[in-house]
Parts: sequence; structure tokens; C-alpha cells
Amino acid sequence: MRDVHQEIAHWLEPLGAIIGIDAAGNFRAAYAANETSASRLLIGSHLDTVPNAGCFDGILGVVLAVAILQALESRRLPYAIEIVGFSEEEGVRFGVPFIGSRALVDRLDDDLLNVQDARGISVRKAIQDFGLDPHKIGTARLPADACAYLEFHIEQGPVLESLGLPLAVVEAIAGQTRSELAFLGRANHAGTTPMDLRFDAVAAAAEWITTVERIAKQTPGLVATVGSVETKPGATNVIAGEAHVSLDVRHHDNAARVQAAKQISLQAAQIADRRGLKISQTQGLNQPSVAMDPFLSDQLEEAISKAGCKPHRVVSGAGHDAMILAEKIPSAMIFLRTPGGISHDPAESVAVEDVAKAIECGLHFLDQMAASPNFLSRTCRA
Amino acid sequence: MRDVHQEIAHWLEPLGAIIGIDAAGNFRAAYAANETSASRLLIGSHLDTVPNAGCFDGILGVVLAVAILQALESRRLPYAIEIVGFSEEEGVRFGVPFIGSRALVDRLDDDLLNVQDARGISVRKAIQDFGLDPHKIGTARLPADACAYLEFHIEQGPVLESLGLPLAVVEAIAGQTRSELAFLGRANHAGTTPMDLRFDAVAAAAEWITTVERIAKQTPGLVATVGSVETKPGATNVIAGEAHVSLDVRHHDNAARVQAAKQISLQAAQIADRRGLKISQTQGLNQPSVAMDPFLSDQLEEAISKAGCKPHRVVSGAGHDAMILAEKIPSAMIFLRTPGGISHDPAESVAVEDVAKAIECGLHFLDQMAASPNFLSRTCRA
Repeated sequence: MRDVHQEIAHWLEPLGAIIGIDAAGNFRAAYAANETSASRLLIGSHLDTVPNAGCFDGILGVVLAVAILQALESRRLPYAIEIVGFSEEEGVRFGVPFIGSRALVDRLDDDLLNVQDARGISVRKAIQDFGLDPHKIGTARLPADACAYLEFHIEQGPVLESLGLPLAVVEAIAGQTRSELAFLGRANHAGTTPMDLRFDAVAAAAEWITTVERIAKQTPGLVATVGSVETKPGATNVIAGEAHVSLDVRHHDNAARVQAAKQISLQAAQIADRRGLKISQTQGLNQPSVAMDPFLSDQLEEAISKAGCKPHRVVSGAGHDAMILAEKIPSAMIFLRTPGGISHDPAESVAVEDVAKAIECGLHFLDQMAASPNFLSRTCRA
Repeated sequence: MRDVHQEIAHWLEPLGAIIGIDAAGNFRAAYAANETSASRLLIGSHLDTVPNAGCFDGILGVVLAVAILQALESRRLPYAIEIVGFSEEEGVRFGVPFIGSRALVDRLDDDLLNVQDARGISVRKAIQDFGLDPHKIGTARLPADACAYLEFHIEQGPVLESLGLPLAVVEAIAGQTRSELAFLGRANHAGTTPMDLRFDAVAAAAEWITTVERIAKQTPGLVATVGSVETKPGATNVIAGEAHVSLDVRHHDNAARVQAAKQISLQAAQIADRRGLKISQTQGLNQPSVAMDPFLSDQLEEAISKAGCKPHRVVSGAGHDAMILAEKIPSAMIFLRTPGGISHDPAESVAVEDVAKAIECGLHFLDQMAASPNFLSRTCRA
């Protein structure tokens, strides 16, 4: 991470940016306004990634911010720009995502600082070991003049490719409900137990999984996934007594998500009941959806049009730092088309032409903001 | 096993039986006829069991044979009786079942003697280590006068309990087809991949599993089981790229079993194809059904009636030593009701009253055979 910070710093120093690493390990580079200004636009994404990852998830958003600043060719705007390269977005090391961006919205608290990695090293200790001072986390907070956050990110899904579009405005980040279910039947001999005397946990789970898929297909905007199935005892010649399954439900509309999750849960209970099985359901994550800022999103749509692309709006099914920043300041996102929808994989890629369009779009957006009384007059930190 | 042999020998010696352990480790006890006879009835079952087992699977059939001999109260019949306690029926140690009974039908050959257990010890070596001579396996063969085999065994299923019957005649041992299938889709982000752009291996497998259950329920006498499901990568927030499933199909009619297995396999291919997934199917075991002897089965039905029970016929979904003996001599089986259908479990049980009925039934059967010209005139070894 230190090498990455240094590399990006080398690109930004010639542009006259003032560079620092905040107490949460976020890379911060400030590019001053052309006049005394009360406004600051943050552009960024995260610098960490997952094991066996590709080259674009996160870091492309930071590199794009640098490229847009370079493309200004030393022009200064009537507002400051701050490039942010967030630390620890993925949650790989500590099991908690968005650690860097939480520091900006004052949510990197003692509880989170005490979270430990697999080797028992806390977030606090990791910050110290990196040469930073965890007592100064407060100084990582959003500056008083921060009034908008913009993030470029690869889509990590197949939608833009299927539509033949390079860019899209993210209008919301979907809410998520996760749970673990167990269908509890009775293990029995696969040869000696007739079909009508079985309490087959796999058959019950299978019926429910087809129901989950049907509900998701019937509900516009909903995605519902059973990614994990574990069977016990899990032998070819034994009817499974237990089937443990995972559920992940997402929708941009909270009411629709909660309603769907409820319906899916009810179906599980009914299927188990009709088959004489027991069921246990444990809810995990229950995270509401986060809307991006309507004004900024409209402006991004206009910028996409000016860059010669057809504007399109999507909902992000994955979480992003923008979701965290949106708690405090108006935030907006642009997705770049992801070939094959492949991400978190060395085959992750992005088209050079799409990146060029993203830079063009970013420049139009900066100019639009420079001409926007709405933006320049904002006092953002509520 | 040596202790078990000794215990059973102690019960049989006072009855005047001649006791030995054959070269395959089977317990053999001969009870002579009341005259020079060319006929011998074998009664037995197996003495081994599975780890964490109950007390009745197998050994009850041997103990019942002893009890029936005791109940003769020194009476001799016009044919010899041989009690057999088979070794290694379950296949726990060497992964191959029916090792003991195979020796009686001359199928404990060099290939089987060379099979090794998890520690690399061969069947041959295990026989030597037990103090027996593997070169003498041939002497374990059925004696020339053996003309029928009778086996009592717990049902290990819930059918007799559900019908309120203590005993049933087994008319056939079902054939089995086993296979392993893999639905191969594409792993993708559970949040960013819309329902209509997924290649979800779990959803495909679930649809197929419900189809397997439907086909089995629609086909009288068929049982079909998916006991094991494994998902890859198997994470809550990732659409599974692979689902590996097992299939076990059984029917007493070979044509019906083969037809059902074919239909189920075709359904898997069609479901995968319609969803844009690939599929791999590997067939494992393909074992034909074995009919029990009609004459002996009719006689057993009569004996059950004489014991005051309602006769009933069932198909055994599990394999038994009788299936092996039936290759060479007419064989028949009686099932005893198994409370809860529970077997291969410490909770395995049997009702004392049902055991008493089985002894009564056995005695009637012996008397019927003594009066049967059909039986006494048999020259059995074809």
C-alpha cells in the first residue's frame, strides 16, 4: 500500500496537489481552487482489493481522478478538488468493509478500532504499525468545505455490456438482507425409505431454491441468491437430514427488499411445514439501500451525453465507499462497463475506449459544477 | 469378532452343532439331519456392522437362527441346518461389501483378496492376521447339499411400522443406479448480476432435484435420492459456478430403474441446456435387482400366517447377503419391523414381540420344509 501511495503521489506532485496520508491510511491529495472557495469536490475510490483480484476494482477510480486532474492541464476551478484513495474497502483483513471511508464520516470508532484480524492484530495496531497515529483518526474527517463526492468504479456485473453502453449513472446502492437457513428433516436409508415416508432436507431446500428464483424473477429490480448449500450427512445413499443454505436478497427499494425477504422466509417455513420438516432461519446483514444525490446524478447524466454516450441509470448491487460518504455529503457514482461482468478475478478488465469516455465525462462534469450556482453555493456538512 | 464367534459357539455347542470358522472368517455351525439327507438349509445373516451402529442390523438374523434351533428342543429334521454368521457384509473396512458371502458363491477371487483398507492392509493379509489361511478360501464354498438360504433381517426402513405389521416377506432386492452430476455455470457477484443474466449452478441443480423427486413419486416402487450437494465457491454473496450432486435410483424392476435413471439424466441435460449451463454426468454403481425364490417366499408367507400375522411382501431397497447367495441357491428373506425406520444408529431397535413372531414363523417354516417333497428332493447347486 505504501508503494501505491508513493506511485500516485509521483503523478500528482507535478500538478501542484498537496499530498498526505490521513490517520486511517487513506491517500488524500488536495488541488486548490482558483480563488478562495467554500466548496470542495472529492473524487475517489479504494486502493485495496481482494486476494487473486483483477487490476481495476477500486484503483481505477483513483487513477481516473488523477487522469481527470491531469487533463485539466493546470486549469484551476472555482472549487477545490480532493482526490481520495480509500484504505480497507473490501473488508478482507478485518472482516469489516469500508474502514477507510468510515473515518471520513466519523464512524471509525473504538469498537471498529478494536476489531482484530485472523492473527489477533487490531485495526488500531495495524494503523500504528503502518506508522500512523490512531489517536488522530478524528483528523481524517471530511473537511468543512467538502460538498460532494464522486466515484468512478467498474460495474462488476454484465448489465452495461449486455446493453452495449460504456458508462452509467448509479442512482442508488441496493439494500441487502442476508440470512442462513437450515431445513431439518430426518436422515434415512436411500434404499429402504419410500418416497412418501421421507423427510428429505435436500428435496425441501431444492423446492425452496426454485421458489427464491421465481420470486426474484417476478419482482422487478430484485436479485436473490442461494450461493451455498451444505448437506448432512451428505452421502450418496443417505437421505439428507439437514440442508444448510444461504440467502442474499438485494433491491434499491427498501420496502420491496423487506417484503421479498419476508415472502421468501414465509415460503421456506411453508415448504418445511408441508413436508414435516423443521426450519431454522437466522438473519445476518440487514442494510438499507442508499440513494445517490439526484442533482449530481442528473449532472452526471448530462456529462455522459456530452461525452457522446447514451445516458443510462443503474442500481448498484454491490456496496461502495459512495454509500458511506452519502451519509454526510451528496454523493454520486459512475459505472464503467465490465467485460463479461468478471470481477474479483485476474481476468477482470476494462476497455481503453471506455476509460477515455469516463475521463471526458469527468471533465464535462467538473465544468458543469464550475458553472453551477447550485453547487458552488452549497454548504454541505449538515 | 473373535469374541462374537465364541459367544455364539457357546450357545450352539449344547445343541450338538458342529462349529467352525471358514477361511473367509464366516461363522459356520452345522446341525445334522435325523437321517442321511441330501438337503441342507442355510440360515444366517452378517455379524459385522457399521461405526456408531445399533445392535440389530445383521446380528439379529444370526441370533434368530440360534433361537430357532434352540426352539427345536433337540428335534432333528429330515434335512441338515447350517447357521452362517457372515463376515464383512457392510464394506466398512475395505469399501467392498459382502466379502464373507461372496466366499460361499466362489466370488472371493484374487482381485478382491488384493483390495486394501485405509492402512494398506489387504483382505488377504487381514484373513492371515485373523489366523486363517487365504489359500483355503475355496473350502468356504457352499457345501454340495446346500439347497436353500433363509435370512432374517431388520427392515431398516419405515414401511412395516407404517402398515402396523411385524414381519414381511422380501420378494426382491432392488437394483441400484448411482451417479455423480455437476452443473457447471458461471460464478458471479450476487449483487451486480441481474436474474436474467445468471448461469446459476445452484438454481439449476435445485430445479433438477425437484424433478428427480417428482419422477420418483410418479413411478410406483421407485426411490430416487439426491443425498449430497456441494456448491462452489459456496459463498453467500457469490452466485455458484458449480453444483456437484449425487444420485441414487432403485427399483425392483430393472427396466423401470434403467428407464427412470435415463429420464432423470435427460432432465438434467435439458435443464442445464435451457439455462446455458454445461453438465457432466458420471455413472457409478449399476447393479441389477435380485429376485428371491418364489417357492420359498410363498412358504414364508404361509409361515407368517401360521404365526398369526398378516402376510405382506416388500422389496428391499438395501442389499443383503441373500442377494449374493441367490446367485447359487434359492434364497428368501424375512424383514422385521424397525421402529422409526431407524438403522445404522445407536437408536436402532426391534420389538421383543416381533422377534417372538419371527421365531414362531421360523419354526413353522422349518416344519413346512420337513413336509415338502419339493424341498427335500431338490438338488440345488446348478
